[in-house]
Amino acid sequence: MGKNMLHFDSDYTAGAHPEVMRRLMETNLEHTVGYGLDEYSEQARRLIREACAAPDALVQFLVGGTQANATVIDALLRPHEGVLAADTGHINVHESGAIERGGHKVLALPHCDGKVAADTVDRYITDFYSDDTYEHMVAPGLLYITQPTELGALYSLAELEALSAVCHAHHIPLYLDGARLAYALAADGADFTLPDIARIADVFYIGGTKCGALFGEAVVAADPARLPHFFPLVKQHGALLAKGRLQGVQFAALFSDGLYLRAARHAVALALRLRAAFTAHGFPPAIDSPTNQQFFRLPNTLIDKLLQYASFEYWGPRGEHDSTVRFVTSWATTDNDIDRLSALLQQWA
Amino acid sequence: MGKNMLHFDSDYTAGAHPEVMRRLMETNLEHTVGYGLDEYSEQARRLIREACAAPDALVQFLVGGTQANATVIDALLRPHEGVLAADTGHINVHESGAIERGGHKVLALPHCDGKVAADTVDRYITDFYSDDTYEHMVAPGLLYITQPTELGALYSLAELEALSAVCHAHHIPLYLDGARLAYALAADGADFTLPDIARIADVFYIGGTKCGALFGEAVVAADPARLPHFFPLVKQHGALLAKGRLQGVQFAALFSDGLYLRAARHAVALALRLRAAFTAHGFPPAIDSPTNQQFFRLPNTLIDKLLQYASFEYWGPRGEHDSTVRFVTSWATTDNDIDRLSALLQQWA
Amino acid sequence: MGKNMLHFDSDYTAGAHPEVMRRLMETNLEHTVGYGLDEYSEQARRLIREACAAPDALVQFLVGGTQANATVIDALLRPHEGVLAADTGHINVHESGAIERGGHKVLALPHCDGKVAADTVDRYITDFYSDDTYEHMVAPGLLYITQPTELGALYSLAELEALSAVCHAHHIPLYLDGARLAYALAADGADFTLPDIARIADVFYIGGTKCGALFGEAVVAADPARLPHFFPLVKQHGALLAKGRLQGVQFAALFSDGLYLRAARHAVALALRLRAAFTAHGFPPAIDSPTNQQFFRLPNTLIDKLLQYASFEYWGPRGEHDSTVRFVTSWATTDNDIDRLSALLQQWA
Amino acid sequence: MGKNMLHFDSDYTAGAHPEVMRRLMETNLEHTVGYGLDEYSEQARRLIREACAAPDALVQFLVGGTQANATVIDALLRPHEGVLAADTGHINVHESGAIERGGHKVLALPHCDGKVAADTVDRYITDFYSDDTYEHMVAPGLLYITQPTELGALYSLAELEALSAVCHAHHIPLYLDGARLAYALAADGADFTLPDIARIADVFYIGGTKCGALFGEAVVAADPARLPHFFPLVKQHGALLAKGRLQGVQFAALFSDGLYLRAARHAVALALRLRAAFTAHGFPPAIDSPTNQQFFRLPNTLIDKLLQYASFEYWGPRGEHDSTVRFVTSWATTDNDIDRLSALLQQWA
Repeated sequence: MGKNMLHFDSDYTAGAHPEVMRRLMETNLEHTVGYGLDEYSEQARRLIREACAAPDALVQFLVGGTQANATVIDALLRPHEGVLAADTGHINVHESGAIERGGHKVLALPHCDGKVAADTVDRYITDFYSDDTYEHMVAPGLLYITQPTELGALYSLAELEALSAVCHAHHIPLYLDGARLAYALAADGADFTLPDIARIADVFYIGGTKCGALFGEAVVAADPARLPHFFPLVKQHGALLAKGRLQGVQFAALFSDGLYLRAARHAVALALRLRAAFTAHGFPPAIDSPTNQQFFRLPNTLIDKLLQYASFEYWGPRGEHDSTVRFVTSWATTDNDIDRLSALLQQWA
Repeated sequence: MGKNMLHFDSDYTAGAHPEVMRRLMETNLEHTVGYGLDEYSEQARRLIREACAAPDALVQFLVGGTQANATVIDALLRPHEGVLAADTGHINVHESGAIERGGHKVLALPHCDGKVAADTVDRYITDFYSDDTYEHMVAPGLLYITQPTELGALYSLAELEALSAVCHAHHIPLYLDGARLAYALAADGADFTLPDIARIADVFYIGGTKCGALFGEAVVAADPARLPHFFPLVKQHGALLAKGRLQGVQFAALFSDGLYLRAARHAVALALRLRAAFTAHGFPPAIDSPTNQQFFRLPNTLIDKLLQYASFEYWGPRGEHDSTVRFVTSWATTDNDIDRLSALLQQWA
Repeated sequence: MGKNMLHFDSDYTAGAHPEVMRRLMETNLEHTVGYGLDEYSEQARRLIREACAAPDALVQFLVGGTQANATVIDALLRPHEGVLAADTGHINVHESGAIERGGHKVLALPHCDGKVAADTVDRYITDFYSDDTYEHMVAPGLLYITQPTELGALYSLAELEALSAVCHAHHIPLYLDGARLAYALAADGADFTLPDIARIADVFYIGGTKCGALFGEAVVAADPARLPHFFPLVKQHGALLAKGRLQGVQFAALFSDGLYLRAARHAVALALRLRAAFTAHGFPPAIDSPTNQQFFRLPNTLIDKLLQYASFEYWGPRGEHDSTVRFVTSWATTDNDIDRLSALLQQWA
Repeated sequence: MGKNMLHFDSDYTAGAHPEVMRRLMETNLEHTVGYGLDEYSEQARRLIREACAAPDALVQFLVGGTQANATVIDALLRPHEGVLAADTGHINVHESGAIERGGHKVLALPHCDGKVAADTVDRYITDFYSDDTYEHMVAPGLLYITQPTELGALYSLAELEALSAVCHAHHIPLYLDGARLAYALAADGADFTLPDIARIADVFYIGGTKCGALFGEAVVAADPARLPHFFPLVKQHGALLAKGRLQGVQFAALFSDGLYLRAARHAVALALRLRAAFTAHGFPPAIDSPTNQQFFRLPNTLIDKLLQYASFEYWGPRGEHDSTVRFVTSWATTDNDIDRLSALLQQWA
């Protein structure tokens, strides 16, 4: 990518937050035992348990999101069960069949901006068991949601509670993919906290890769009995890092001095400035996203001009005259980046 | 681990070689595309192809060894096939069933210090197909070897050529696990080069985790037709890093200025000093290893004393009077570490 | 089920066609080798090759349809690939996740009465490869169709040729599930023959269970290179019958003296009489099916009366006033059964 | 096979016991619901529960042994677990990797004539958990045994009780493969009954294929909580027969009037006559088998002569002068068959 380009294509295009890198450098020459049994990993687990208000929680570090999803879903399901998810869900679309590789069908549900309604889940499960031949079909064994969704939308606390209630009424766990959880917690108008998430989701993961770390995702289960024998399963999935302390050091940094939320708030604030700039030029957001992802429907002529100075992604196929595009901010986005983008809009829009 | 401890427990207890860390820091704020499509990854692939004298080679970065093994083996085998390996092979023992998770049986072979003989492979396959009911058994679909072995032993060039000849005579690929390949190349008396490995093994991987990187393994196939559609398979295995450039930066550093071999030679030289020290005190090596792993049979009394000052591992169960232990060196081991260990031996042995 | 009930619930409620049973009895005390290597299986394979005008065809007997689908799909796909199918496809709905158990996603397509259009397939594959991130998604690796469909509809010869052309243009095989293939071949207005099917479908199976046998499905590939090493894969799927000659004897009977088609024509003729009876009483078919399955939308009051004398199935949930029901005929249905049903309609409809 | 040949190659070379065939014929034209929900299957389940003195037992019919093993083992294990078995165990050798297909490693144990000792199991599990790195290895999740073994040997009641005690001490289930269970129950000196088996094995199956049926195996768990959701798993494995009543009719016949044991006693009595004949001519059994399989070490010259008149199998590779062969009897073997074989021995041995 050009050196002077503006980068709005994703939240994983830069390295790690400088505070995270600093800690990696400071600890680099130390020797520790492997596989996450070291003191830094233990410290990170402790900090995460505190931040979640979940003193007994299982906290296990994995390297990436696809891996975390596949491993958790394998752990939670029996072989005859599948996973309910919005048909836009990352596991249904962009994981190259990682869930099916584990033998499980993704049972796709209708959604709104990537959000699944509690009613939809309830009806699916009720209808399923009212069919005489249900044992010939894949049983809904857990509900997978993303917070925020792949489209930047947020579940409210009430919506999360409703989903949890439906899941528990039907005796299936609720699993929340938090690849971008920081941006949900930092979102404009978010009415839930990390302890709420830890209480409501039977299992979830705190995304590191897209939220300030080089890599790493922290799977959390407030009740560790939810994930028995998770460690060997992580190893079996090839998801156990030899130098596990790398995740420990990074998550310890992210959960010290409020860095995880601080970095996310920075990104969200800039996303809102960016949204305001587009709106001011006649392009309101295509999706109501209070998070670090913003979607706009723009004329192709404008898109082509912007692409000379800024990287961002098409969202769906390019249309004849207009197309939908996505702009993403992160800890690495600066006020100056937004200023420069605004200037471009001022000039062309 | 205590701050003044000597560390000989493994070659993954410290972080990355300082030159690797330096490059990670220097590039941290840059923005690049994800998933290994960036310039640093491309540069690293180019450097590795050069070092392997394999200009067309497929080079794909994965995060860890278990992952690399499971993904490559899945890519190379058909569902009815299994993988031949020494019964000490890492895939047969220490990967929590990652190979079986992919549906493949590990067909364990007898070995000598972790090395499988060409004759053994030839006889296994010949006997297999001479059994009338062979279609009711798992077909040998590839040969897996480690260089050096889990016991520190080395295949000679002639032995590797013989294995390759047997594999090709039976139309199965040879896959070489190079988790510690640097130490093989740097070993005392090694009569093969990286281009030899790239020519002989249909697929192999160049270990980063245990050889100077924070993490990362580079899977190489001189003929890319050996691994068609490898990229989505890597993604499906949860082995594709979002910030793929992290592996690119690290491997580019390791394959610039000869760092990969230089760091390994350092480790091997210290391992040989360590071996000499034990031998001088009446403890010749238990296994003839010219690499960075050294095995000794020591009195438990000596072991208990040493463990107060140095970390190292039991190899197998503790015996009644004597036990076998393993000492491992790495880029992070210093001459002073060996001096201090020698002094302890001088005092007690 | 009551002794005087009329049976229209499915085509697998009775045993085998009497000619099939006679041959099983006649050969019962003979000794043969197992696993389908016997003379009867060889004879059946020969007869099927002749009937298909496919002299080199691989013909492998399996026990049931779910098994046949899972085994063939596993044989045809690479791990990163999925199977395109109508979202009503048996593999997508009623096989308890057998395809996903093999690691493959079912890529559901829109359909008309269970039929997938060539255009739909073409557009799916074209769109797939025009997405930059297609390697993060499950690649369409084969097309699965049923003939007749689960809804009794038929692909015409031209439609089959078009599907085949699209598949070959995109280098994926076409697999045809022929659980009820006999009824397709015997259907009113069928414009294709068994040799057409064998030529057009890269792999297909000739259903025995629903078409006169006790059990058994014959997988056929005109070009055996399509299914290399299929035998051990069948064994691995638990689909290899020890007394394989049982399938040989049955299929030899079905493919002698035209029994397979003869029995199906009988069933279809009675299905058409049944359809005429419903139509005459004001209930035209809900789906245009020229095969042994007939679907009607009936008042619940009529359904309830009929259910006292005849077994048949709801198709979908019971409506408030009317519901859709399915009537199925087979070799075991008699003219008298249709007469009795007509009389009931006469009385109540 | 020639019409006048004597058949000792296996117990699945003929069809079904005539009483079984008679019942299949008598019921052939009846209509029943599918998938084992019919009255005959219910009757068979009732009869089996009575014969096992296990009034609440889950009884599920599957088609064949490989299928039963793969399905039960999948049901009993978690993804990170493997199955302990004698290295001669059918699942470890002759199922084309069906267990690994389900993701599970077979953990091979040393044995005596196919029998695993309780001590061996205890030591394996104890050693496993005393290894610090056990979570990197495949956990022993169940014990698989065969009764009688693949070599015709029998576990005594005391040996079975000891295995059960070890399993329960280590909290893993005991699964018994009863492919030839009838011959164990009917064996010379058997000191256990079917209720003993049902009490001792957490799950087992009663073999039909090799013991008088055309096909079919009845999986039994005295405590149905051992196999929750077993039905959809059977379907997912492709192991659910549409015309499930076929197994019901056959097992109802086998468990009426003592046919199952009666037919097996006939086979065992003839096996003992055969053994006596060989012993009398200087060929004592190579393995002490009180069941329907008999193994002898014979001169190749004698083997070659016998093979002109009788079919039987080599057991292992042919030796230079002598080879081990297996003779098997079944319900279909006659006194005259043994007389004729004895006459051949009289002439040549």
